[in-house]
Parts: sequence; structure tokens; C-alpha cells
Amino acid sequence: MTEKLLGSIEAGGTKFVCGVGTDNLDIIEKVSFPTTTPEETMPLVFEFFKKYNLKAIGIGSFGPIDIQKESATYGHITSTPKIAWQNYDFVGAMKKKFDLPIAFTTDVNAAAYGEYVAGCGKDLSSCVYYTIGTGVGAGAIQDGRFIEGFSHPEMGHMIVRRHSDDQFKGCCPFHDDCLEGMAAGPAIEKRAGKKGQELSEEEPIWDIEAYYIAQAAYNTTLILSPDVIIFGGGVMKQRHMLAKVHQEFEKLINGYVKTPPLKEYIVIPELDDDPGTIGCLALAKKEIEFS
Amino acid sequence: MTEKLLGSIEAGGTKFVCGVGTDNLDIIEKVSFPTTTPEETMPLVFEFFKKYNLKAIGIGSFGPIDIQKESATYGHITSTPKIAWQNYDFVGAMKKKFDLPIAFTTDVNAAAYGEYVAGCGKDLSSCVYYTIGTGVGAGAIQDGRFIEGFSHPEMGHMIVRRHSDDQFKGCCPFHDDCLEGMAAGPAIEKRAGKKGQELSEEEPIWDIEAYYIAQAAYNTTLILSPDVIIFGGGVMKQRHMLAKVHQEFEKLINGYVKTPPLKEYIVIPELDDDPGTIGCLALAKKEIEFS
Repeated sequence: MTEKLLGSIEAGGTKFVCGVGTDNLDIIEKVSFPTTTPEETMPLVFEFFKKYNLKAIGIGSFGPIDIQKESATYGHITSTPKIAWQNYDFVGAMKKKFDLPIAFTTDVNAAAYGEYVAGCGKDLSSCVYYTIGTGVGAGAIQDGRFIEGFSHPEMGHMIVRRHSDDQFKGCCPFHDDCLEGMAAGPAIEKRAGKKGQELSEEEPIWDIEAYYIAQAAYNTTLILSPDVIIFGGGVMKQRHMLAKVHQEFEKLINGYVKTPPLKEYIVIPELDDDPGTIGCLALAKKEIEFS
Repeated sequence: MTEKLLGSIEAGGTKFVCGVGTDNLDIIEKVSFPTTTPEETMPLVFEFFKKYNLKAIGIGSFGPIDIQKESATYGHITSTPKIAWQNYDFVGAMKKKFDLPIAFTTDVNAAAYGEYVAGCGKDLSSCVYYTIGTGVGAGAIQDGRFIEGFSHPEMGHMIVRRHSDDQFKGCCPFHDDCLEGMAAGPAIEKRAGKKGQELSEEEPIWDIEAYYIAQAAYNTTLILSPDVIIFGGGVMKQRHMLAKVHQEFEKLINGYVKTPPLKEYIVIPELDDDPGTIGCLALAKKEIEFS
């Protein structure tokens, strides 16, 4: 009999990434499908996993989601703006097809967990992982547990202070000029009239962007005091950004808190595009221990 | 032989409150001394505890402090603006006089712990406790553990967005108009020319104050998602404040996150002036189990 494998679903707002891997968190296969409707997307997910002999599945989903195990709607995607997915019983649908231990958390928590077990957070006791892309989200881990309470964090919507050169109204449908409304990819595109990856490194918009990301790092430092803060997602693929974020962070903190050296403290992901998949595999593995 | 007791030291910026209590967290005696210098204040602490047969002591200290057990300066007060206490080896000094298990955390963590074990957080899995007084500080607990990493949180210095009617520059020596710089007692006094407790409930300054406190609650909700947020300290003794904070919080969150009902979610301390003492007693008791 062959070794049973771990399954991973990174359910993002634009695409689903499904993968299988081993107990060592080595990825054996990884595929992706566009996120359209449950009726279209989920059969592709089921089909993919049917080929494998699995022992557990880890799901990191876009949200908001219900993570309270005692809740009647545990495992559901809840009030998402994606209407087709509202109140979708994600864990229930998977359980019907695969009678296995299933871990369920947010997509950003899963990515945070990947970096925590196998990336920038590997030898540390805590980490926070942000993705700055189509939206802004973050997950936090301390001593192997997610930071959570009545629900999961929604750090992307924290309050930021407006940059003095920035007249952009902000594009968060709930809060206009919160972090996501000012710093996610669409905010860059709406200001500049083109996508971030088409803008030169000299554009002043990157200084504005760094100012907002540095505020996220600053508030995260003061509220969670983690061992490392990781910034991933499309916007951070602009590799010149990290040095700008360090500079703005130093100005904000103004010597008040003695953080670890910034090059080790505010970083980009070590697992490139795989923190989510590796995190889901690791969560699947952990779920077996607890089930 | 009489039952051994637990000792408690709430080392605040203005006064030290020392207490002794039982395993049930009943306070037997409580005294306070002004916080002047270690040479003056600490002998009063030693003298007080000498009268009792103690088994452990819990300390909640003003900070910043070193809470990393493996650090060479563990148990020290570090870069405080109170020069006499800079680099003071608090735990070391106590250990010299009392060879007992000693718990050491921040004053706000201790108060958070008190509310967590015996107050508003008693039946919940997480809580955050803010004190809004001479300064602003907060402690957070999830599943019995403090939220911390490279150091303890310093939530009082988070970024806030300026109220449109507020021209006050802010009085934080590090960040001018951070939360503490805009919302602590001295900021109210500097704006109004008199102390908060001398101002009528109708003064518009309370709306401004509530706006800043609501931002603290908002960012705390998005970053930690705790089961309850408790606001204590002198400023919150203005009992009309809580309803204003609820109103401002609702405007800020704008339906994005479904928190528990606000009357249960954003609250004042249940333990009145004792969360710190009760928290230190509980931490002392816990320290025995782990030592």
C-alpha cells in the first residue's frame, strides 16, 4: 500500500489552488481553477482529489468564514461579497465527498501557518503574515495557535493615517480609506490608471504605498509584538518595496520599541508562492493528530 | 501552620499597590506607596511582604520591561522615561529578599489577567484590557496565555486618525498624536485646561475622546478578534463614555464584522479597582504550577 497523502485547498478570491503532498510537506502536485461559483468550481476540486489516496485535507478559504467549531454554520463561507459563495457549506461539501479529517481556516491563516512551520517563522514562536494583493488580509500565529476569538482577524481593514500627498478617496466598500482601501492592488491601479506591475520603481506612488504598509507593520508590532512580520502578495513582488517599508517603519516607531533588526523582522515570504499550500498541508497533518 | 498566601505587586507609574490574598483570589490586605525611586519604594514593598508567610508573588510592572526568560536582563524594567527605574532588576531584587516563585509581566497584562480569570473574561477564551489614564496601555490574553512575541504589546501607541474637530498636537514624546498622545488623561487636560473629572458630560471633548477610544476598539477587533474588550483606567470612570464609544465603534466598523452584542463586547472592568491585584495573585498561583 502506498503512503497516504495530505490534501490542500487554497480557496482564494480569484483562484482555487489544490495540491497534494507528503508528511514532510513536499508538494507532489498542484493545480489551479478559477473561482467562479460552487457549482462550477467544486466539481473540479472533487475530481482532482479523487485521484489520490488521502488521509486529511487542509482548507484555507477566502472569507469571512465561520471557524467556531460549536457553531451551526461552522465550515461555511459567510457574508462574502461573492454572492454565489454566500453561506456556502465548504467543509460540509468536502465531508460529503471525502470522509476525512478536514482543517478549516482563512487563506491568510493558512499562508501564515506555512511560513510558520517551514518558512520565515520556522524557528520562532510567533509570526504574522500579510498578503497585499487584490485585497489585504493577514493571519497571526503564536506558539502554534492562530490568534482568534469571536472570529478570525480582518487586519486588512485597520485604520491608516492618510499620506499627506495622497488625495485618493480609498476603495473599500465598507470603510473607504482603511488599509485595504488605500493599499491593495486596485487602489494602486485606480490612482495610477494602470496596474502596479506596469509602473516604474521611481513612481511616487510606491512611497505612498510603503507608508501604508509600514503603518500595518507598526500597528502589528504594537498590538501583537510578533517575532517576525511577513509581507507577501502581488504588490510585494515589487522587490524595491521592502526597503521603503523599513524606512517608513523606522520613522513611525521613532525608537520607542526595540524590535529585532528590521531585515529579519519585516520580511517577504521564504516559500515564494507556496506558503498557502504548505500551510494547508501542515494543517491537514495537525488535524489528524487532533481528530 | 496557617495557609501560605499569594503576594501581588502592581507597580504603576504613580503608585505601587501591594497585596496579599488566598488561592481563591480573595484579597486579604492591600496597601499602596508612591512610585518614587527604587531606593525609597522597594524597602516599603519588602517590609510589607515580610509580615506574611508567602508561597509566590506576582508582579505587574510599568514598562517597558524584559519578559524574555532566556534574556540576561529578564525581570528588568528597561527603557522607561522614569530615570531612577531604568535597567532596574525588579525580579532580581525580589528574589534576593524572597526565595519564591515570582511571576513577572506588565501592569496591563496583570489587569487583563485579573479580568480574564475573575471578571468580564471569566467564561470566555480571550480578552483585551485597556487602561486609559495617565497613559494608555493594554494587555491581551488568548486561552490563558498573554499575546506576546519579541516583547510585550504597547497598544497605547497605535496610530489613530485625527478627529476633524481636534486641533490638539498630541503629547506623546515619541509619536505626538498616537492613541496615548491624543486620548490619555494629560491630553484631555492640555486641551481643556483642567482635569477630565472637572469637565461636564456635555463638553464636546468627550466625543473626540470616544472617537479615539473607538478606534482602539476597532483596530483591536480587526487584529485580535477577542471575545471581549475591556476599557478601564481613570478616563473610563466617566461613565457616560461607554455609550459614546459604542456609537463611534458602530460607525467605524460599518457592519463589516459581526461582533458580539456591543454591550457585552466593549465593556468596563467588572473588578473595579482590583483587576491588577487579582491578576497578580492569579499569576503568582499559576507560577507555582510551572515552577
